[in-house]
Amino acid sequence: MEPGTARIAVDLLGGDDAPAVVVDGALRAVRADPDLHLLLVGPAEVADELIAALDPVQRVRITVRPVRDAVGMADHPSAARAESTVRAAVTAVHDGIADALVSAGATGATVTAAVLGLGRWPEVRQPALVATLPAVTGPVVLLDVGGSLEPRPATLARHAVLGAAYAEVAHAVPEPRVGLLSVGTEAGKGDRVRRATDPLLAIEPLPGGARYVGLVEGYDVAVGARADVVVTDGFTGNVLLKAIEGAYAMAGGPPVGGGAPRAAALLGVAGTVVVCHGAARADDVASGIALAAHLWRRRAIDLVSALLEGGDATDRTDRSTDTEVRTS
Amino acid sequence: MEPGTARIAVDLLGGDDAPAVVVDGALRAVRADPDLHLLLVGPAEVADELIAALDPVQRVRITVRPVRDAVGMADHPSAARAESTVRAAVTAVHDGIADALVSAGATGATVTAAVLGLGRWPEVRQPALVATLPAVTGPVVLLDVGGSLEPRPATLARHAVLGAAYAEVAHAVPEPRVGLLSVGTEAGKGDRVRRATDPLLAIEPLPGGARYVGLVEGYDVAVGARADVVVTDGFTGNVLLKAIEGAYAMAGGPPVGGGAPRAAALLGVAGTVVVCHGAARADDVASGIALAAHLWRRRAIDLVSALLEGGDATDRTDRSTDTEVRTS
Repeated sequence: MEPGTARIAVDLLGGDDAPAVVVDGALRAVRADPDLHLLLVGPAEVADELIAALDPVQRVRITVRPVRDAVGMADHPSAARAESTVRAAVTAVHDGIADALVSAGATGATVTAAVLGLGRWPEVRQPALVATLPAVTGPVVLLDVGGSLEPRPATLARHAVLGAAYAEVAHAVPEPRVGLLSVGTEAGKGDRVRRATDPLLAIEPLPGGARYVGLVEGYDVAVGARADVVVTDGFTGNVLLKAIEGAYAMAGGPPVGGGAPRAAALLGVAGTVVVCHGAARADDVASGIALAAHLWRRRAIDLVSALLEGGDATDRTDRSTDTEVRTS
Repeated sequence: MEPGTARIAVDLLGGDDAPAVVVDGALRAVRADPDLHLLLVGPAEVADELIAALDPVQRVRITVRPVRDAVGMADHPSAARAESTVRAAVTAVHDGIADALVSAGATGATVTAAVLGLGRWPEVRQPALVATLPAVTGPVVLLDVGGSLEPRPATLARHAVLGAAYAEVAHAVPEPRVGLLSVGTEAGKGDRVRRATDPLLAIEPLPGGARYVGLVEGYDVAVGARADVVVTDGFTGNVLLKAIEGAYAMAGGPPVGGGAPRAAALLGVAGTVVVCHGAARADDVASGIALAAHLWRRRAIDLVSALLEGGDATDRTDRSTDTEVRTS
């Protein structure tokens, strides 16, 4: 674990089994990481109950933040309440009260709140969710896993750049090999989007020593021998990641190096945001928090931004609402 | 194994390691199935060499058929030679010399040859490749795995009907539950194609006692508890299937019930056609041959056709070249 305090805002209402598993995951996370401070964000009645339950030792490192907007929203649909909560957590990051944000809520709502509240990098029209799978020769970075379901070829090419930068910064992969996911490895294989993206990637300047290795197949995502970064649309990436998770469940458990991740980092907004699987268990929430702390301590999001086109990420935010973010 | 002779035409040039693994797979298949007869179809020089190598016992059940078109094609690109071979194998099925066809060649070329040579069912605009995965509560039928990469919603709805009929006929699944693959299970999740297909499937009449259960996720393809038939586009299905294969390789081997299949049945043409993984090994070719024999002995293709809209499949073929088949 890298040194340094990390202050993580956690969305108490995010996830199928919130707030119970979120609180459980938060407690696990602080036990595992002595330099972690958590800001649990949720509606007043949930927050009050939680504050009363924390013991004095826990209160040193866990702060509970009632969401004012959510007061009196008990009669509102749960989706509206959850969106209000994730927006408040984003605001905490924007205002510098927290260093990063973790939510197991609806991906679309979290991405939209992050784009509007933290600002989108201008050279990234559609933010990407990035998942890292342990593979034979090192980590495989898969993106997108649900941020943009129907990206254009130019967006996929942009995501290749993001993924290569992320592999270098977050996982210290030297000279990452970038592949485009398709139904075969020969040039020309795939649907229209893939056939249009392949030639774009062949000429796309990639950060650091990254290089494009051409088309890769589903097999290469779990095994990882052919590429360190696998680029695909958010629909395919999402079902692929969950299929690998299902296969490991069928095979009696994940391989020694670890299974399919249930937390993903958001790339393309000016802040550290981690999205957990909607069906997150407490240990998934805890590993989402650990991922957010890891990314913050490495200053990964700022470094990825700096690798894109030079300049200081904090000056290049774009709070335009003309975003292509789609709710999934 | 069902009783009855099955005569299977095998494309000697199909697959990355053809003809060696194809011949090896063919020999394994005849050893495993005493009622199997094979017609190995390939260019004259490959055929001659193979005939010379067969012993008298093998010659009783293995016939080698030189492709006349391929004579003198040694200078042609290998893809053109392979297409000539698969066309000759299709012709053998059309002419009643063989009952079914197996190829590990390029999927697009095989599908096109089958549509042109055997005829497409008029109610199926785009044929589908169907793979069956062993799961916890029984087989899961996944389609499409590479036949039509960019189907319209109406095609996906049609494939749901094909998949349900196939699950009943080929795998004796009673009242199959049909799911549409997406990025979440709540209605409205997914890209435009999925959001348009979900309401179509809710009203699509399904054969037998099949019923639509709504959206399912990647996890459900390998595990199978929520649906017996999973419908998706050929791009997603292909990468998904190969991802599950990769996950099993990472996990140290497939589960007890079996791994990801490397052979798929083609539905939508008037004949029994099985497509093997391009990187097929000898045992994959052998299991593709066994699948073709199984489908023929059950008269599965005719029964699926009969379940569609009534009538006799052999009178309803459409050899129109106005097909939407895409090479992948």
